[in-house]
Amino acid sequence: MEFEKIFQDIPAHVKALHGKGEVASYIPALACIPGDKFGMALHTVSGDCFSTGDSEERFSIQSISKVFTLSLAMGFEGDSLWRRVGREPSGNPFNSLIQLEYEKGIPRNPLINAGALVISDVLVSNLDDPKKALLDHMRVLSGCFDINFDSEVARSQAQTGFINRALANFLKGNNNLFNDVDEVLDLYFHQCAIAMSCSELANASLHLANHGFSKAMDESILTTEQTKRMNSLMLTCGLYDAVGEFAFRVGLPAKSGVGGGIIAVLPGVYSVAVWSPALEASGNSLAGAAAL
Amino acid sequence: MEFEKIFQDIPAHVKALHGKGEVASYIPALACIPGDKFGMALHTVSGDCFSTGDSEERFSIQSISKVFTLSLAMGFEGDSLWRRVGREPSGNPFNSLIQLEYEKGIPRNPLINAGALVISDVLVSNLDDPKKALLDHMRVLSGCFDINFDSEVARSQAQTGFINRALANFLKGNNNLFNDVDEVLDLYFHQCAIAMSCSELANASLHLANHGFSKAMDESILTTEQTKRMNSLMLTCGLYDAVGEFAFRVGLPAKSGVGGGIIAVLPGVYSVAVWSPALEASGNSLAGAAAL
Amino acid sequence: MEFEKIFQDIPAHVKALHGKGEVASYIPALACIPGDKFGMALHTVSGDCFSTGDSEERFSIQSISKVFTLSLAMGFEGDSLWRRVGREPSGNPFNSLIQLEYEKGIPRNPLINAGALVISDVLVSNLDDPKKALLDHMRVLSGCFDINFDSEVARSQAQTGFINRALANFLKGNNNLFNDVDEVLDLYFHQCAIAMSCSELANASLHLANHGFSKAMDESILTTEQTKRMNSLMLTCGLYDAVGEFAFRVGLPAKSGVGGGIIAVLPGVYSVAVWSPALEASGNSLAGAAAL
Amino acid sequence: MEFEKIFQDIPAHVKALHGKGEVASYIPALACIPGDKFGMALHTVSGDCFSTGDSEERFSIQSISKVFTLSLAMGFEGDSLWRRVGREPSGNPFNSLIQLEYEKGIPRNPLINAGALVISDVLVSNLDDPKKALLDHMRVLSGCFDINFDSEVARSQAQTGFINRALANFLKGNNNLFNDVDEVLDLYFHQCAIAMSCSELANASLHLANHGFSKAMDESILTTEQTKRMNSLMLTCGLYDAVGEFAFRVGLPAKSGVGGGIIAVLPGVYSVAVWSPALEASGNSLAGAAAL
Repeated sequence: MEFEKIFQDIPAHVKALHGKGEVASYIPALACIPGDKFGMALHTVSGDCFSTGDSEERFSIQSISKVFTLSLAMGFEGDSLWRRVGREPSGNPFNSLIQLEYEKGIPRNPLINAGALVISDVLVSNLDDPKKALLDHMRVLSGCFDINFDSEVARSQAQTGFINRALANFLKGNNNLFNDVDEVLDLYFHQCAIAMSCSELANASLHLANHGFSKAMDESILTTEQTKRMNSLMLTCGLYDAVGEFAFRVGLPAKSGVGGGIIAVLPGVYSVAVWSPALEASGNSLAGAAAL
Repeated sequence: MEFEKIFQDIPAHVKALHGKGEVASYIPALACIPGDKFGMALHTVSGDCFSTGDSEERFSIQSISKVFTLSLAMGFEGDSLWRRVGREPSGNPFNSLIQLEYEKGIPRNPLINAGALVISDVLVSNLDDPKKALLDHMRVLSGCFDINFDSEVARSQAQTGFINRALANFLKGNNNLFNDVDEVLDLYFHQCAIAMSCSELANASLHLANHGFSKAMDESILTTEQTKRMNSLMLTCGLYDAVGEFAFRVGLPAKSGVGGGIIAVLPGVYSVAVWSPALEASGNSLAGAAAL
Repeated sequence: MEFEKIFQDIPAHVKALHGKGEVASYIPALACIPGDKFGMALHTVSGDCFSTGDSEERFSIQSISKVFTLSLAMGFEGDSLWRRVGREPSGNPFNSLIQLEYEKGIPRNPLINAGALVISDVLVSNLDDPKKALLDHMRVLSGCFDINFDSEVARSQAQTGFINRALANFLKGNNNLFNDVDEVLDLYFHQCAIAMSCSELANASLHLANHGFSKAMDESILTTEQTKRMNSLMLTCGLYDAVGEFAFRVGLPAKSGVGGGIIAVLPGVYSVAVWSPALEASGNSLAGAAAL
Repeated sequence: MEFEKIFQDIPAHVKALHGKGEVASYIPALACIPGDKFGMALHTVSGDCFSTGDSEERFSIQSISKVFTLSLAMGFEGDSLWRRVGREPSGNPFNSLIQLEYEKGIPRNPLINAGALVISDVLVSNLDDPKKALLDHMRVLSGCFDINFDSEVARSQAQTGFINRALANFLKGNNNLFNDVDEVLDLYFHQCAIAMSCSELANASLHLANHGFSKAMDESILTTEQTKRMNSLMLTCGLYDAVGEFAFRVGLPAKSGVGGGIIAVLPGVYSVAVWSPALEASGNSLAGAAAL
């Protein structure tokens, strides 16, 4: 089996990258994680699983969560969602306020911070306990019922997340946040602080490779069209300002997080999750991108 | 006396402007004030006072407060203040985040919102009870000891001031706010909500026409150089995006607020305050600017 | 054969879109072309050809030419090319100067106007007669030796292309144009004015679906890596500010032009070209995108 | 007489600044001028003249010419002029395209490059031989009939003025330039290349201190209102991005040029011109500003 061979070879290749890149330091609780951790897990639609390294160790999924909150929000709102957030790449840093001001509070896409805050707002509007609902969603999708928030990370982000707080208030001031700013931010900081392993993430993402059908839940959680929308968003907007480079090097719809995780899917074939905390200048996992 | 004649004639001229302009509606507590109120008071350095109309009625001084907080802050910080805030006109709306992001969190000048928030932060750093200290400052300068915050306006601004909250958090995220964001905003929203009359404002501004010497306090509260700095800031940055137009029509250092007030000084001769709530498109009092 | 059936059905679907969209009017010589023209041609790597409608009628390829000039330039410059032009989507209109100024004259990618001007400059630096060389390249790639510039269109663009002239001068002023501005613009306006049919374009693009190997020329004109780079650029930057939408609706690397043409490739399988002059708001062919 | 004493003392103060600042290098023909040249001339409305240093040596007036072309243009267009160019400070570098794009081709004011190009366009529209007419204007205003263009400087600027060429083409592409771009630029590059001495400039500016009345011509060339408009523009927009600083240090309406010249006026009293080629970071003459 080809995948098996690849997974045997990857650790040696990745080892050459040890010591390169930088662990994100702006979230204090993440700064202390060893940069040379590396794990990877791939689940095929047909049921095979491959993994290597620290694939069972949980890490902070950070912006990868944007895929899952968007997936939940898609179920609540139809196309009206896209009046509040665009679907095009931004060409700006993930936390920029500039484009948001020029475009009157309509974020470019739901995978940059401003867009994800609008999505969080949708969840707050539609769910009694959005944090619990999101956690349940991740647990059921991955089949691991002890997945949880890393409350130290959530608190650390809440204490230092001034730019996200600026974005949320700016959205509110432009009438594109319907709930209380603090409530939306609380969900946002918690979604970023979900701790999952590569195996769990690969499993939770498998429906994106399977036309929206979750094997874990034995039901479709996204329509085929919604799944296609999600994958095209990941392809064009999923890797901050390195979307073009990643499309060249990897060519798969993907979403990265500053915790060093990346998920990617080959539609119809597999989902894959990789983790290594040291980041490239663009904010994506150095070894993770190389492994993919 | 020339001033006496002018003050007799002004009301007739201003009456022609009734019904023009719009009262600021984005602060709910201000939206209900009749747009055709008009008052004006002028105090000369030599001790004469002239007034007309609703010159004794108190209104929300709003951004005019930026002159007085800056004046207080100048006493605490020397030139180091200007490392945190610039001294040039912005060419952007008073609450824009764009320039602030491009210029890495250094506001263009202390008379736009972002700059005034930095000044508030300086006051919070240096004063035990900055709100009380500011109130005392205004009371002593004007000689009216019942000047106070309009707490309904302050609450209204706190509840709806999302863009200011965005600015403050953005400054904090760029390490240009040293205190708690909420504490700085609390002072900021309160300073805007100070209620004063034209007579009180004219008196409180008289030192700006008098080389920094306050007759009410019988001492210099600004050096000659600081006074000159304040007046040049007012001249080039005091009227939002209508600085050039105001320099043409009026030609005096001035500062306006969205409550419809404007203060202005003729250095060496007089200070003047005018109030009329209906605003021009640029956010300055329509009848107030015409009267000046 | 599936393609045959699809090509029989397409005209009926496209007819429903007649009268929608707008023919580009800012290039006078293009404004008079009937908006409901429609042609499409698909060439497979294995040698099959399918076509329908006005697939043999030539039209102005406009920005589609950016793919072919970049392809030529890749042969002259190695990775040093990417010091002069980026590889990420721009999130701005195709002819914006704003990002170019903020990023000191380095265009975001070679498929927006500013980037294509840098590529034209590379061709002027490396070719004795770049216009003739480009024409020869298109002729050999497509196997049609009477392909030519539409000189009326080229003249029309030169006379009205003030924004492109602004971009070129701005690049020159930022030391990112090494040749004479007029010479670079002359090539640029001519490349846009090449007239080709869908069949010719499909044939000329076939190497992009074939790892860089041109069957018409019986040689590789791009390496596998260069081909992959080109396709990822088309995928992430090829459709102005509708890249995300096109990735969702079509999912293929593609490049559009305001003349109403679009080329696209399915790597390993086929290249396809479509033409219909009426455009969507984003500047891409309305019926063309629908057909793809 | 106070002025006489001041003019005797200035050279000693200025000598302390020798070796500071940088001569503008981006116009090759200006780069070779010794940075420590210094001249100054002041003409009072009542007819007195004071001068010191190299006050009779001619230099390239550069952007100071914007005052005189605007003065000419004011005579041709009434208030309609202000539909094509604003009257507010820009808060951006003098040659920025960013604000121009956001504001759809309407320059912020006539004293930045984009605005001055619109003014040049007005002159080209209204004058048979605008270069000759401008030269005649300067000659008559100053009373020196051998004032001329420095044709080497004009040629040097035409050859290297790519950003100005970008601005002119951008204006044309936004329908805010009615004549041929090259013709407008030719006038613009020539106006910048006028060579005049401090004495000549002080004389030519005297009407700005005299309600628009030119003693040299014995007639009013600007109305009182136009003169006031010019002075307020100089006060708020005349010194690039150091308007606020200059208002503080000097406090007079003024216009600087990168050739090291500055003119200023005290309305009702005097006009003054100063020249010293070494510039501050903001592009204004270092010793010139100090002397003023």
